[in-house]
Amino acid sequence: MNLPKDTEILIVGLGLIGGSYARALTRQGYRVRAITREPSSVDYAKNAGIVEDASVEVRADWIAEADLIVFALYPHIFVEWIEEHGHLLTPGTVVTDVTGVKTAIIGRIQEMIPNGVEFIAAHPMAGREVYGVENSDDGIFRGANYIVTPTEKNTPAAIALCRSLGETLGFARVSELDPEKHDEMIAFLSQLTHCIAVALMTSNTEPHLVDYTGDSFRDLTRIARINEDMWSELFLLNKKKLVAEIDAFSGELNRMRTYLADENIDKMKEMMRISTARRALFDKKV
Amino acid sequence: MNLPKDTEILIVGLGLIGGSYARALTRQGYRVRAITREPSSVDYAKNAGIVEDASVEVRADWIAEADLIVFALYPHIFVEWIEEHGHLLTPGTVVTDVTGVKTAIIGRIQEMIPNGVEFIAAHPMAGREVYGVENSDDGIFRGANYIVTPTEKNTPAAIALCRSLGETLGFARVSELDPEKHDEMIAFLSQLTHCIAVALMTSNTEPHLVDYTGDSFRDLTRIARINEDMWSELFLLNKKKLVAEIDAFSGELNRMRTYLADENIDKMKEMMRISTARRALFDKKV
Repeated sequence: MNLPKDTEILIVGLGLIGGSYARALTRQGYRVRAITREPSSVDYAKNAGIVEDASVEVRADWIAEADLIVFALYPHIFVEWIEEHGHLLTPGTVVTDVTGVKTAIIGRIQEMIPNGVEFIAAHPMAGREVYGVENSDDGIFRGANYIVTPTEKNTPAAIALCRSLGETLGFARVSELDPEKHDEMIAFLSQLTHCIAVALMTSNTEPHLVDYTGDSFRDLTRIARINEDMWSELFLLNKKKLVAEIDAFSGELNRMRTYLADENIDKMKEMMRISTARRALFDKKV
Repeated sequence: MNLPKDTEILIVGLGLIGGSYARALTRQGYRVRAITREPSSVDYAKNAGIVEDASVEVRADWIAEADLIVFALYPHIFVEWIEEHGHLLTPGTVVTDVTGVKTAIIGRIQEMIPNGVEFIAAHPMAGREVYGVENSDDGIFRGANYIVTPTEKNTPAAIALCRSLGETLGFARVSELDPEKHDEMIAFLSQLTHCIAVALMTSNTEPHLVDYTGDSFRDLTRIARINEDMWSELFLLNKKKLVAEIDAFSGELNRMRTYLADENIDKMKEMMRISTARRALFDKKV
């Protein structure tokens, strides 16, 4: 179900994701305003017509008028923003976010926001290897997952509004996950894979390798072009779960190494058969 | 430069790769015959018109008439074939292969073949996740690398003929590499990446993960659907180099893990910056 057409939306942080939200929502006739730090982002968004208005000032009137406020900021900036300006939020407002980790953030935000304001967290699993509102593109939501991560403090109404946001943005699949489960899942599917891609790029320094690269290697390292400020922050905020996933993966890789060193071909094949069978399940879900 | 039009070609082993060679060469008017083990492969190839003739018998007359014989077999079957039938090879014939590892194979083959027959090894870096002549497709060579791996026993004429084969097949890039360098390169770019994909698939058994998978994870594990007979054999034949690459990669992944556990954000970012810069080089070569 889409958001009601009269939903007043405020986006805080016009980067790649905030800008893509603005594009999708404005295109569908919603009134979208934005508060962001860089004057150049304000100019771009207004000239491109992806917001009705935008400002580098923290406009108390816009905050009060908004029904739904989306924070599309780095996690620590989101927390700082709420510390500094959270008192401006008015009762009845629903606040959501786009943060890639959840347990480290949700509790802190829910504690800080004023009574009567509800924070319902969400994670749009979409992105590009480029940054900034200039590169925003709501096409990135097509085929992607939008995950709402409610806690016991959330109301059915806010959860439904947040789900509607994901549907309005054009995500292929909107689902709900417990914040802990979300962070486990993201540690494995997203953070571990980024660690692997980075380690692959730093583990071999032969420059001539580039000349012989095949598709497999390119596929595995596409995500090795990484925004170090954002990802190092997300890794630290999910440290315990990510370390556990690295350890589990390293254990399996070491198992293959041991079978290979021991020339235990039966065990090598067994791992490969399990891998093949499990990967086949992923294809069916495409 | 393409192969001379009157080159008589014999393919031994009509699987995915042998069949794709046959398709590409027959399409361009070369006379291609094939010897293979399965009667069904013979029937398919003849019916599909991708060979002039094919046989499950080891035809001494075809072997004698061929100018160029391509062995497209699993490594150990290639070695066994030469042990059993190598005496049928006649002086002046050039023999090549498609084997994915080189140092463990080249010396053994060069020792066994009769005087006057030249073995020049090559590695077509192309494939699919399906098998058999029924799935053969010479489109897989487009955009791919073909690597000739000469030794000091090879003549310029045979090297040139082998390069012409790669060009005739339609590879984007034909190059030469020392067999040792080839095996190092393949250990890193291809074998290590397959080990990583398998270990990723076996390290997490939560079935619900499939529902939240993004593109990064699908990209990293596409190659986790793996032919266990072929890859376990290739891994063992390149054991020393592959173990070294696994160790180097594990060291880098563990370095990231240590920085994360220590919350050493500067060092984490440094690894990410190096990764980003190095991966950018790969994009330029696309």
